[in-house]
Amino acid sequence: MRLLTLARDLKRRKARERQGLFVAEGLRTVEALLDSPLRLRGVLTSDVLDRTPRGADLLSRLNAAGVEHLRVSDAEFESAADTEQPQGVLAIAEQPDRALADLMLAPAARLLVLDGIQDPGNVGTLLRSAAALGATAAVVLPGTVDPWNAKVVRSAVGHQFRHPPVLATIEELRAFLDAQGMALWGAAADGVMLGRQAVPPRLAIAVGNEGNGLSPEVRTACTAMVAIPMADDAESLNVAVAAGILLHVLRPDA
Amino acid sequence: MRLLTLARDLKRRKARERQGLFVAEGLRTVEALLDSPLRLRGVLTSDVLDRTPRGADLLSRLNAAGVEHLRVSDAEFESAADTEQPQGVLAIAEQPDRALADLMLAPAARLLVLDGIQDPGNVGTLLRSAAALGATAAVVLPGTVDPWNAKVVRSAVGHQFRHPPVLATIEELRAFLDAQGMALWGAAADGVMLGRQAVPPRLAIAVGNEGNGLSPEVRTACTAMVAIPMADDAESLNVAVAAGILLHVLRPDA
Repeated sequence: MRLLTLARDLKRRKARERQGLFVAEGLRTVEALLDSPLRLRGVLTSDVLDRTPRGADLLSRLNAAGVEHLRVSDAEFESAADTEQPQGVLAIAEQPDRALADLMLAPAARLLVLDGIQDPGNVGTLLRSAAALGATAAVVLPGTVDPWNAKVVRSAVGHQFRHPPVLATIEELRAFLDAQGMALWGAAADGVMLGRQAVPPRLAIAVGNEGNGLSPEVRTACTAMVAIPMADDAESLNVAVAAGILLHVLRPDA
Repeated sequence: MRLLTLARDLKRRKARERQGLFVAEGLRTVEALLDSPLRLRGVLTSDVLDRTPRGADLLSRLNAAGVEHLRVSDAEFESAADTEQPQGVLAIAEQPDRALADLMLAPAARLLVLDGIQDPGNVGTLLRSAAALGATAAVVLPGTVDPWNAKVVRSAVGHQFRHPPVLATIEELRAFLDAQGMALWGAAADGVMLGRQAVPPRLAIAVGNEGNGLSPEVRTACTAMVAIPMADDAESLNVAVAAGILLHVLRPDA
């Protein structure tokens, strides 16, 4: 399939899943992709890219790496791009295959579990936080936005290329946690205040939907619920901020 | 000025500043606005709003509160709306006036300082975190996106209506901090690891631009720099996640 048609097709989740491919847009994201172990299938560029030294430099690197390259018009580029003000570079790459069974857990380890997160920006920021704050992986449960959605990829600014998310069902996750002796804690406003618990060496932390919180299935699977102390009149924290606080405070070497 | 023309005009920062008004879009945000002390100037709705019980309920509340109301066509609504899939309700309200001199600091208090934050979603999430994690206020320095931008308002999901941000210059902030005996710490990857410092009772925490970090002026004004421990191969945390961790760990009653 021609690169332009392919890039347009990959806007749909079904097409991404069927082909095992995803699209990365923008200078910073494509630079990170090129620095990662992931395999690139091709790159679309427009004249916008050549207008900055950084863009021209990236183009040289892509050419040197032998990546298939198609120059398209601004209008064609915009038809494939997800961003409103494209930087003139868009890469198509292979989704890495990473399953629960691939995870090598240290004696003290953390997982971040995403349960029904709907906002792509939040999912990207969660993947970035999981990688930056030392979780072995982020586990994405059904009902969460596709982690290979272009907006997610942009928000994760490259972190998910080196720390690919793991897609799993709640049953698969439960079986894995049992086999690995790993506890599952859920973030919830009605939980025990953070800091008042003994923290198990192996711990998965689940965060839930922006409006509704954790699903009943995940709540049932949790061995404890934990809350972040907040001001009296506060409604809630952004889910990515909450996860960041939990991953930091509950880190293995804290 | 007619409400529709006004709403369209308020998409521009200059118009918002000149008129001292802002636009709040969507069910959840307008509900929060109606529950807040802020004054509404008027509301635009489209037929989309009446299609859900929650929307119809909000319309009754707006009418009961005597808010000026204009029903417009879907096309007119979209010309004023910032969202791609509007929920059919958009309110125009007065920006609250809150200056540094208005802040009543407790003996132990926190401020969050926004220095050159460019992404409206990040600014909104920072305002939400400052309110939820007990900061007395968020202080917005020049170079940061307008905190009354429609995207910021949406991301803050109502928190900024009860905890209005304070706009100030770095000189005004320095004078205020000196007068109040408040320290200023900056978030930076080259700072001292979080948890290794004695925390002053009154502390302002500054976070900087998504790409470049703190400005030289703010770095100079800081009495200490603080870093969040991260995985070896991690590049950085999202600025709103970093601020959330700092506000939580450095809270007065920690």
